[in-house]
Amino acid sequence: MKVAVYPGSFDPLTNGHFDIIKRAAKIFDKLIVLVSVNSCKSPMFSLQERCAMIKEVTATCQNVQVDILDGLLADYVSRFDHAVIVKGLRALSDFEAEFQMALMNRDYDENVETMFLMTGVNYAFISSSIVKELDRYHGDISKYVPDVVQQEILKKRGSK
Amino acid sequence: MKVAVYPGSFDPLTNGHFDIIKRAAKIFDKLIVLVSVNSCKSPMFSLQERCAMIKEVTATCQNVQVDILDGLLADYVSRFDHAVIVKGLRALSDFEAEFQMALMNRDYDENVETMFLMTGVNYAFISSSIVKELDRYHGDISKYVPDVVQQEILKKRGSK
Amino acid sequence: MKVAVYPGSFDPLTNGHFDIIKRAAKIFDKLIVLVSVNSCKSPMFSLQERCAMIKEVTATCQNVQVDILDGLLADYVSRFDHAVIVKGLRALSDFEAEFQMALMNRDYDENVETMFLMTGVNYAFISSSIVKELDRYHGDISKYVPDVVQQEILKKRGSK
Amino acid sequence: MKVAVYPGSFDPLTNGHFDIIKRAAKIFDKLIVLVSVNSCKSPMFSLQERCAMIKEVTATCQNVQVDILDGLLADYVSRFDHAVIVKGLRALSDFEAEFQMALMNRDYDENVETMFLMTGVNYAFISSSIVKELDRYHGDISKYVPDVVQQEILKKRGSK
Amino acid sequence: MKVAVYPGSFDPLTNGHFDIIKRAAKIFDKLIVLVSVNSCKSPMFSLQERCAMIKEVTATCQNVQVDILDGLLADYVSRFDHAVIVKGLRALSDFEAEFQMALMNRDYDENVETMFLMTGVNYAFISSSIVKELDRYHGDISKYVPDVVQQEILKKRGSK
Amino acid sequence: MKVAVYPGSFDPLTNGHFDIIKRAAKIFDKLIVLVSVNSCKSPMFSLQERCAMIKEVTATCQNVQVDILDGLLADYVSRFDHAVIVKGLRALSDFEAEFQMALMNRDYDENVETMFLMTGVNYAFISSSIVKELDRYHGDISKYVPDVVQQEILKKRGSK
Repeated sequence: MKVAVYPGSFDPLTNGHFDIIKRAAKIFDKLIVLVSVNSCKSPMFSLQERCAMIKEVTATCQNVQVDILDGLLADYVSRFDHAVIVKGLRALSDFEAEFQMALMNRDYDENVETMFLMTGVNYAFISSSIVKELDRYHGDISKYVPDVVQQEILKKRGSK
Repeated sequence: MKVAVYPGSFDPLTNGHFDIIKRAAKIFDKLIVLVSVNSCKSPMFSLQERCAMIKEVTATCQNVQVDILDGLLADYVSRFDHAVIVKGLRALSDFEAEFQMALMNRDYDENVETMFLMTGVNYAFISSSIVKELDRYHGDISKYVPDVVQQEILKKRGSK
Repeated sequence: MKVAVYPGSFDPLTNGHFDIIKRAAKIFDKLIVLVSVNSCKSPMFSLQERCAMIKEVTATCQNVQVDILDGLLADYVSRFDHAVIVKGLRALSDFEAEFQMALMNRDYDENVETMFLMTGVNYAFISSSIVKELDRYHGDISKYVPDVVQQEILKKRGSK
Repeated sequence: MKVAVYPGSFDPLTNGHFDIIKRAAKIFDKLIVLVSVNSCKSPMFSLQERCAMIKEVTATCQNVQVDILDGLLADYVSRFDHAVIVKGLRALSDFEAEFQMALMNRDYDENVETMFLMTGVNYAFISSSIVKELDRYHGDISKYVPDVVQQEILKKRGSK
Repeated sequence: MKVAVYPGSFDPLTNGHFDIIKRAAKIFDKLIVLVSVNSCKSPMFSLQERCAMIKEVTATCQNVQVDILDGLLADYVSRFDHAVIVKGLRALSDFEAEFQMALMNRDYDENVETMFLMTGVNYAFISSSIVKELDRYHGDISKYVPDVVQQEILKKRGSK
Repeated sequence: MKVAVYPGSFDPLTNGHFDIIKRAAKIFDKLIVLVSVNSCKSPMFSLQERCAMIKEVTATCQNVQVDILDGLLADYVSRFDHAVIVKGLRALSDFEAEFQMALMNRDYDENVETMFLMTGVNYAFISSSIVKELDRYHGDISKYVPDVVQQEILKKRGSK
């Protein structure tokens, strides 16, 4: 059984992330969405909140699981037999950081393989940061995140 | 009447910014230099100080106005009929972030158009950050900012 | 009156080109689509055929004209008072060649200004070359070129 | 059963290509190495010679097949149920052309998915073109191509 | 005598840095490794600790010296007659920031020349940041830093 | 004695090339300008004509020699003790091809070192191709090539 791991901070999950999840879930037997700490920023949602939202959004995707990364990604992936790391590349994203990380992970453990999927063009400019920027000024985010995520963001907004 | 908006944090305005202002002012009927908060950094000058300096530097450019952005850029631009966002691209700058923002703004409101001008080669390496870095060690900044800006920086330097 | 010149080989005109034409025509008082020889390749259509097609496609755009470039672009643009060269940048295109050309043209005549528009995301992967590649294997090109162009391509195909 | 297709001109197959073949063959149930015409260049080997060499080099990889592409890649891949196109990305290669092609193929048929693997660092600078350049001046190519390929190149060299 | 200066924050020195030091020391008569403050981050080691480690690692390189930068790099380099700044470029690194800095330094003082060496492919993905990331989760760093550095890192780790 | 080799097709030598020659000649004890065939294009000048022009242009640079490359660059450079290949990088040039070649040459012979100098900003957009393009339409090339080269180009033009 081929397992793929899709790591990210998902703070919050965007429609671009969800597109990658659905497409990767068709290619691999099992897909683990792996939520990690985004160390340098003050998060919008806690790790637990992010997990809960992703579980709800992916509830109908039978071969998708959600987990939290606590340690090195390469160590997490090594537990599985030839698991593959899946990353989405936006035409406008930071290839170099991604490629550096992929080479590093493979050097760390040569069985840790990374495969890249191109984000769909309609998601080329969407990122968690842009969603947060829109939210700061109460902009309309309905086109950029799943409904579940939008509701949680609006709840946060209301409670401020 | 064609209105263009030139957004930036201008902390401080450099000769590279001023070059873009003069060139864009020739192309459009009215150019609004729009000063925005640079959220992640502790600024050198306040929004009001930056506005005052840009007004002084552009005093002889009759079709140039200065304003402060308080909200989303796309919302600001939408007030005008087919206003255009103008951005300077340095040969060495971060295209991808600029392009992502341009696509995002157009997705948010399809009438929000962004046009890019190439920064002149003599300004290719000048940025507000580099001016601040030079200032930190009392380097000579006279080639990189307008006189008005240099004087204000030297005043700040003296008062520390 | 602000004149803009949109140069290219347009062999053939794609929907991506047409999108830039419509958007630039909203920004400038007059837009000249300037068809140039693509020296290194055997063309699909002659300069005259390309002009005729673009005229037909842009028939309803009142401020759009079509012309043929016979000489240096900078010399052509210099005839007008502060005319602007407009170029479309695809998120996936060759920025560097475009920027080099823009700097060169401005060095050649400092009044020759180039402005870049981002191609819409739905056109990010469309190019004349890809249309020709699809045509070679009789692929479906209807989504990538205007109807007029598609008909002319199918005529060529039929006559081989 | 998950089928992956690895297209290229392989003129000639390098150790970098072979590295991608071995790694992709571990991830997918079946891998088809798909040899295509490289239209713009005078080839070193004919399509049939290239196929024969790849078959010999991959003889011990049980789930690897070799085929010739005669038409559009998207049409070839569409025959299979959710087949995946696999491409190797060198840290130093032309991302943009690859990403443009991936977006195009998915637009042409939304079930045609492309996944990218990073070429190993030791192969980052190897390409068929560089092997041909070395061969032109009788340089040592033994580190850059499989033995089978080297022997065929030396035969060609001898027969000139 | 040709002097070269190799500036960096070296927090900590990696095998990639050491590779550049050894290669640059073969080209120039004297090489000064110049340790600078990395202003935006909380450092792993103090400037003095970094200097001491680099001195120990380069003890056998007779024409290598270590110094601390306290001011502008261009001012430091100007003390020497036509000294050259040496920088390592990783295939995956941030060219643009490096090139911007090189142009700036030469504009500041036209005798300040910068030369770039390509980092060896085996070091393409190694950076001080990645070493710190690995260390955070007690990953194996022995392949990425000299022995001396590894021991100091393990000491820090033990003392937390 | 430190020898550097500056390879290129120099068809024709531009002011950008000449800038690199003068700067590299200050850094190394001897600089060999190495003229190579540009295989894929029909040249403007023969190898001998290019050599003669470069010799004339560099007549006053005492430590500069001119030679013709007939074989692999790595083999040429290996004749010297730790000679260094010097390349100019334009902010707008093709880094990737240059870096690929540098890695390849070092893999071929680990003593073959390549160092990159940034082309001055005023030469950022100048290339032999652009000079040829200008010449085709009898544009003014006086700012882009040394006088000697301009005269030879005008002679060619006159004789057509």
